[in-house]
Amino acid sequence: MARTASLSGFPEWLPQERLVELHVLDTLRKTFELHGFASIETRAVETVGQLLRKGEIDKEVYGLSRLQDDEDAASKADANALALHFDLTVPFARYVVENAGYLAFPFRRYQIQKVWRGERPQEGRAREFTQADIDVVGDGSLPFRYDVELALVIVEALSALPIPPFRLRVNNRKLAEGFYRGIGLTDTAGVLRSIDKLEKVGPERVAELLHEELGATPEQAKAALELASIRTEDTSFVSRVRDLGVQDELLEEGLDELEQVIGAASAVAPGTVVADLSIARGLDYYTGTVYETVLVGHEHLGSICSGGRYDSLATKGNRKFPGVGLSVGVTRLVSRIIGAELAAATRSVPTAVLVALADDDSWPAAQQVAAQLRSRGIATEVAASAEKFGKQIKYADRRGIPFVWFPHHDGSHEVKDIRSGDQVPADPASWAPPAEDLVPQIRPNQGR
Amino acid sequence: MARTASLSGFPEWLPQERLVELHVLDTLRKTFELHGFASIETRAVETVGQLLRKGEIDKEVYGLSRLQDDEDAASKADANALALHFDLTVPFARYVVENAGYLAFPFRRYQIQKVWRGERPQEGRAREFTQADIDVVGDGSLPFRYDVELALVIVEALSALPIPPFRLRVNNRKLAEGFYRGIGLTDTAGVLRSIDKLEKVGPERVAELLHEELGATPEQAKAALELASIRTEDTSFVSRVRDLGVQDELLEEGLDELEQVIGAASAVAPGTVVADLSIARGLDYYTGTVYETVLVGHEHLGSICSGGRYDSLATKGNRKFPGVGLSVGVTRLVSRIIGAELAAATRSVPTAVLVALADDDSWPAAQQVAAQLRSRGIATEVAASAEKFGKQIKYADRRGIPFVWFPHHDGSHEVKDIRSGDQVPADPASWAPPAEDLVPQIRPNQGR
Repeated sequence: MARTASLSGFPEWLPQERLVELHVLDTLRKTFELHGFASIETRAVETVGQLLRKGEIDKEVYGLSRLQDDEDAASKADANALALHFDLTVPFARYVVENAGYLAFPFRRYQIQKVWRGERPQEGRAREFTQADIDVVGDGSLPFRYDVELALVIVEALSALPIPPFRLRVNNRKLAEGFYRGIGLTDTAGVLRSIDKLEKVGPERVAELLHEELGATPEQAKAALELASIRTEDTSFVSRVRDLGVQDELLEEGLDELEQVIGAASAVAPGTVVADLSIARGLDYYTGTVYETVLVGHEHLGSICSGGRYDSLATKGNRKFPGVGLSVGVTRLVSRIIGAELAAATRSVPTAVLVALADDDSWPAAQQVAAQLRSRGIATEVAASAEKFGKQIKYADRRGIPFVWFPHHDGSHEVKDIRSGDQVPADPASWAPPAEDLVPQIRPNQGR
Repeated sequence: MARTASLSGFPEWLPQERLVELHVLDTLRKTFELHGFASIETRAVETVGQLLRKGEIDKEVYGLSRLQDDEDAASKADANALALHFDLTVPFARYVVENAGYLAFPFRRYQIQKVWRGERPQEGRAREFTQADIDVVGDGSLPFRYDVELALVIVEALSALPIPPFRLRVNNRKLAEGFYRGIGLTDTAGVLRSIDKLEKVGPERVAELLHEELGATPEQAKAALELASIRTEDTSFVSRVRDLGVQDELLEEGLDELEQVIGAASAVAPGTVVADLSIARGLDYYTGTVYETVLVGHEHLGSICSGGRYDSLATKGNRKFPGVGLSVGVTRLVSRIIGAELAAATRSVPTAVLVALADDDSWPAAQQVAAQLRSRGIATEVAASAEKFGKQIKYADRRGIPFVWFPHHDGSHEVKDIRSGDQVPADPASWAPPAEDLVPQIRPNQGR
């Protein structure tokens, strides 16, 4: 993958690479549907007012304007101007409010679409990229159990992908906020913002930030950093937090919730779902569980799947819609799979069989052979012209098409495996390729 | 479907409607792959220079600008400014040129993506919509046979959709241009533009236009209109054109090409692929075969699938890439299927089975039952809380989930078909729903 995108931040795949992406998308979709998530898509376009609804955001938004129009471009000043969505959560919240009368709550949906952010492109960060989101949203209330279930669904989905082992790190905002409150740090959002920088700047600098920006005493900073240092593969984080001796009602609630998630998940996927009390998820508006996910050995890539619980994903008058969800960074994952050659497709085309032409007049008959094969699910092309057989075989070879079919004038047929050279009689009504040749396979690269 | 889009021209579907769209997309993809077309996607964003490359276009382009930026919005004046693509042909041509060294020619690809046009929304015309394109592109040359093959592929693809009968109308620019030249009308593009208005304004007005704009004599206008009146379901159009007594080399070439398409297609799909010598495809830059498709009984919807042959889809220095392709208007089709209730999904969620909870502690055991069912491809949800069974059954009923599963404390299980009320013992390791209940079905509405 020496190619670079012709527009920085807007990656495009070659056909063989696209097969890897399709495999990832199909696998996610299949898992989500097996768990009863319904597909929706929202328009790529929202009003600027909708996108900036929650105030301060750290996403760079692309505004739209019609070239053949004299109107000014989209601007923050005009809330009705159009812009491209920067995630799938804000559009989903709008969709839920608009269609509440047509949806059955709790409503489980998955949504796989492109989103756009005008940020400086860098490794793992594109300007146009695909997200795959699952959320459950309730009307008024939403059982906490969904926070557990979504962790299990996403572990199952990610485990089915051709990627290295991963860690789903879970924390709980109530736990963190209750703890900070309990030690006397009342600007809990401010503490979270500082803690969020832990991996980047280290504990000493975070202690300084807590002091400079929030007036934290050395003891308070120390306690906050001690909390953030707790990482356990089981529910033992509970006693470790208790050992810090902080009393707070919200802290207890958060401890109980996180214990449920880690307890259930460590039974199903031990070592994969871990409690990590450093997870803050910066500027996002979560109110309970927060998730993020790193690929082991690729931690610098950043989180490949993040999310959490919102007390109020959306509101409609007095009506509140709480939600919990996770978003898989498909493009980030696929870029890494392709860039680091973690997996590859066995060929570049869906075609399993090329029907060769002995002469140009036999094209209609060859089409009939192809139709017979296709009717049984075997992807088949017919040669476009009766070049020498060697050239037709080369056409197949260059694309990785494993079989070339020869219809003979006496009505008999032969099929050649062009890898082994074996050529055998075959009947278009019953012949089938080996299962591993039927469609392109995505094979993990064992060496990496 | 009384709902209207919250942004005019940007349709969104409810989950049950989205299943219709997914069915259409999956069916197209499956057919394209069975015929050996490889999937690609291009970025949604092109430079303005690339989009306006061919000069005059009738598409309204959306320019992009970053809201957090002081730069001016995209404008025609700045060829490097970014804008959203308005079709998939222009981006594909760019992709071919950029990646020519990595592709095997002739290159067959399908591409299913959203495109944007800032036009006035109206019936059958949205501002954001999905197209599904297939093209074959050659390096230097491309056998004419692909023009025949693509007609056959698209007939197979459209025939698999839950839509009324359709007519794929085919014409040939060489035939038309040769004929106009043969009768002394040398501004063949001008004649095509007038003929293109035939359905809208009628033959008398077209005759006036030909006179006013191109100086055509009454005899010339009459001959051009006679040509455009020829529509045949077989190759008899050839003799009807010859009867008009016009001699031209290009006309002969076009007659021969169109005869090949109609001859092969009428053998496979009689009455579906027809010669229609009025088809002009206005401002598009085709050089041979042109296709468009109407739904019988829904002609006012406009073409649901159009395309044609380009002598030069793209160029790279001296290298020329001829192509032939067709584009299905997925959103136009799906809007009509939903709006006219031509077909509908049998339920709104993928879920086939809801596992009920007798008490809250049995949730982990219920998850194990669900996992067993899912491992055999049966989409399964687990109730989130142990409400009364009546409420849990109502949860399933409101979503169209056909089966509710009851794990008993003695280790036995029962499953209830909530439509019939039948409840029978079942084993999670072997039970399966009837095939028609496994996934939501898209059923054509017989009454329409």
